[in-house]
Amino acid sequence: MYPFNSERPYIRNAWYMAAWGSEITRTPFQRRIMDEPIVLYRKQGGEPVAIFGICPHRTHPLVDGRLIGDDIMCPYHGFTFSAEGACVRIPAQDRVPQTFRQRVYPLVERGGATWIWMGDASAADMTKMPQVSEIGMGEPGWKTVENGVTNIKARWSLVIDNVMDLSHVGFIHLKTIEAPAAGEVAPQDDAGQHIQCARWLTDQSPDMAYARNAIPGNSEPLDLELGSIFHGPGLVAAYLRFYTAASRGARKLLSTTYHLQCVTPETQHTSHNFSGVVRNVRLDAPDFDQWLRTAVNKTREEDVEALEKIEPLVDRYANARTELSGVGDVSAIRVRRHLAALMAEEAAA
Amino acid sequence: MYPFNSERPYIRNAWYMAAWGSEITRTPFQRRIMDEPIVLYRKQGGEPVAIFGICPHRTHPLVDGRLIGDDIMCPYHGFTFSAEGACVRIPAQDRVPQTFRQRVYPLVERGGATWIWMGDASAADMTKMPQVSEIGMGEPGWKTVENGVTNIKARWSLVIDNVMDLSHVGFIHLKTIEAPAAGEVAPQDDAGQHIQCARWLTDQSPDMAYARNAIPGNSEPLDLELGSIFHGPGLVAAYLRFYTAASRGARKLLSTTYHLQCVTPETQHTSHNFSGVVRNVRLDAPDFDQWLRTAVNKTREEDVEALEKIEPLVDRYANARTELSGVGDVSAIRVRRHLAALMAEEAAA
Amino acid sequence: MYPFNSERPYIRNAWYMAAWGSEITRTPFQRRIMDEPIVLYRKQGGEPVAIFGICPHRTHPLVDGRLIGDDIMCPYHGFTFSAEGACVRIPAQDRVPQTFRQRVYPLVERGGATWIWMGDASAADMTKMPQVSEIGMGEPGWKTVENGVTNIKARWSLVIDNVMDLSHVGFIHLKTIEAPAAGEVAPQDDAGQHIQCARWLTDQSPDMAYARNAIPGNSEPLDLELGSIFHGPGLVAAYLRFYTAASRGARKLLSTTYHLQCVTPETQHTSHNFSGVVRNVRLDAPDFDQWLRTAVNKTREEDVEALEKIEPLVDRYANARTELSGVGDVSAIRVRRHLAALMAEEAAA
Repeated sequence: MYPFNSERPYIRNAWYMAAWGSEITRTPFQRRIMDEPIVLYRKQGGEPVAIFGICPHRTHPLVDGRLIGDDIMCPYHGFTFSAEGACVRIPAQDRVPQTFRQRVYPLVERGGATWIWMGDASAADMTKMPQVSEIGMGEPGWKTVENGVTNIKARWSLVIDNVMDLSHVGFIHLKTIEAPAAGEVAPQDDAGQHIQCARWLTDQSPDMAYARNAIPGNSEPLDLELGSIFHGPGLVAAYLRFYTAASRGARKLLSTTYHLQCVTPETQHTSHNFSGVVRNVRLDAPDFDQWLRTAVNKTREEDVEALEKIEPLVDRYANARTELSGVGDVSAIRVRRHLAALMAEEAAA
Repeated sequence: MYPFNSERPYIRNAWYMAAWGSEITRTPFQRRIMDEPIVLYRKQGGEPVAIFGICPHRTHPLVDGRLIGDDIMCPYHGFTFSAEGACVRIPAQDRVPQTFRQRVYPLVERGGATWIWMGDASAADMTKMPQVSEIGMGEPGWKTVENGVTNIKARWSLVIDNVMDLSHVGFIHLKTIEAPAAGEVAPQDDAGQHIQCARWLTDQSPDMAYARNAIPGNSEPLDLELGSIFHGPGLVAAYLRFYTAASRGARKLLSTTYHLQCVTPETQHTSHNFSGVVRNVRLDAPDFDQWLRTAVNKTREEDVEALEKIEPLVDRYANARTELSGVGDVSAIRVRRHLAALMAEEAAA
Repeated sequence: MYPFNSERPYIRNAWYMAAWGSEITRTPFQRRIMDEPIVLYRKQGGEPVAIFGICPHRTHPLVDGRLIGDDIMCPYHGFTFSAEGACVRIPAQDRVPQTFRQRVYPLVERGGATWIWMGDASAADMTKMPQVSEIGMGEPGWKTVENGVTNIKARWSLVIDNVMDLSHVGFIHLKTIEAPAAGEVAPQDDAGQHIQCARWLTDQSPDMAYARNAIPGNSEPLDLELGSIFHGPGLVAAYLRFYTAASRGARKLLSTTYHLQCVTPETQHTSHNFSGVVRNVRLDAPDFDQWLRTAVNKTREEDVEALEKIEPLVDRYANARTELSGVGDVSAIRVRRHLAALMAEEAAA
């Protein structure tokens, strides 16, 4: 099953994060998604636009062009396209054939992020939109700390593997997350609406930095629930919940933080990783915002370092070894099977 | 038709500029042409030599070797070859078999440039030599300002496309050539001896910098003829002619400048671009020489920037898009058809 | 025959130098051999270990892991392997299947170097071990000056070619070895136990730097024997012997120095070159040690420069030329035939 067949390395019929809403402005910028250069900009009325980024006349990148109202003009010979993809002007020519068109992509703004559909535009399926409200994005009582986008030189499926097996928290994040037990506890797989799993760490010290920031008044031992949720190819999240320790009486939930890990394939071997943290405690605490940003950046650096070492080995040594898995890999493997089924479905269509 | 079939990416039976005459000296240097490393040097009598640049003994580059009279000696084990390609010495060996030979290339010096034939040497066809005298090179009453050679990371056909569609002068050269109207005027295609086209810009201001330098005494409005000429795969030129404005009486030609654009394929995806300006006015004006050099360098930088952005997109996205063309592309497309026919002819031979 | 078939670019059933013994410690390090990442470390008792360097769980490089006793633990999720290749621990899991194993390689320490067998471990053949004692390594009366390991961006067979045709000493090492005649003397091929050849340079000046260092009291003319010996794919050596000049009376051997050139394929197009000098004169002379190190480094730089220019040309222009050989190439070609036969034997097995 793994590595996936590289002839069809993407799942196209899904919504992927194209950009944080704040990244898209009246200055066009280009982001490569599934190896397609896509130019993103906003119309004068604010609506975001995603258009294929290569001029169909003589192949110049459109991103260097100028916006003329809601249209974009190629800088080489001046061919101009509307936000709906019509060629609306060719210099020194009276009429433009109606068949002269450029591909535009369905793009939806939700939860502070914009989501792109890379499959056939006429089949864009709003029911597949990631339910960002389920992890608090854009919901009252929750706050999202956006943490930018990192280009990772590793395929999207490796990033998902990373999130779905959080035992690595006890190894490569040992100094940043301070939860060595995470590696030694088997996860509980959950066969509910989403593929997810959780690791329970009981009777933990209240002195770990994360707890001091999330629930600063607490001095009692804690139970931790460390989990992974797969919402779809474009949205996976880790989460951390602090509870009062069950060993001291009825367990009570104190806080939830979702660590958003949106993975958008850039190419077969590189990914865009949009990260952010959504929480339901201490919403108006800039020091906690900052602490989270720093923590996310450090752990992301650790993950990126590991993933970029792994990427060049996956295909090259696929035949030199048989992959081994342990009990902690159950949920990650369920996700892989699901992804392989989606790919097979698209290949058959 | 485009991109051309990359299995046979070159037209070999043609003369291409290998070097400006001044580049070839008694110190051998290497230039890669059609992916062949070629060493160029002069014999003691001054005759230029082009020899295949890899020693047939143990593969060392010959360019690092030494000239011994008219011969070149490999620096690794001392095998030595004459300017006619005979192996004339193997150290520690009395006799050298007569079959030990190295490929040499037909090379002709004309108009200040040296021209190489990359096809079968026995079929080198002098009737295909670019008629450089037609654009004034080496002719009395004309002066050539050589402007060196630029390596462009774009295939040769993209450079030709660039010269054959001068509407881009009104876009990417807007600040350097000061002729915004060039993009808005349809060209007149000319079905004469060469494939060529011209754009007429009438009643232009006499204050544009090019006019002030070419015809400094003039203060009357001007008609401009901006054209492209295709002489063959190895020689294309743009030209600019200033006339008295027809709106003020009988049109009179004031000056002609040819902007030489010799394109020699280095590899499938890179080119050597030899440029220079040939003019019939103000021959003895070093300030005009200098102004032309500066202007050519600036516009070349602008062209190179565009072409190098386009090159990596041409093959990679060939299937993702259908090329659109406008009325301004007629001559460029005639050139492409001519080139495709030459390639088909060589493939059939 | 050459270049060798790149489908099977290596001879696996042979012993190759993996590292100088001093390189292998309790800190794991990775060396790529035949495109396999191999981690080398010592057990607590000092025995060297070579283990395949990619964790079979989720593909992380093992070299970043930690040693736990004689075992090595992957840094990503903690899978742990013994020096014999058994998976001995999976965190959060009671039992590990006995089939969970990692490849380990036969490794033997001899003459200050460690030698690895890259073929099937069960077929490791001690009779094929390079007879390092024949060139004095580790023998009484001889001293080895180790000179590190150089990564060369050229295939292993080019390095062997280089050593087997020492006529290049008279060209590219002209300034370092001061033996211009080496290029002008035909070698004597020796059809004994090893493939080897020698060049005799008679009545040489005693003032050459090498002679002043090896036999400092001498002021008489010398005969030099400059030779190449092929012991097997993993061990080739050049040697230099100084004799009293036969023209002055009975020839007497004064000194022998072997210039070890162990070539271990890193990839198809790159090699590890372990070099060192073994001598039987002036064993306790640190100034001679230093002079040899400097001389070896300089000539190695000259060889590396040539080989790295040649490497990219070998395959690319294989069809554009016919290789020429001279009388000086006899031994090098005998080695190539022997290597081609070994490859054919492995391909047939």
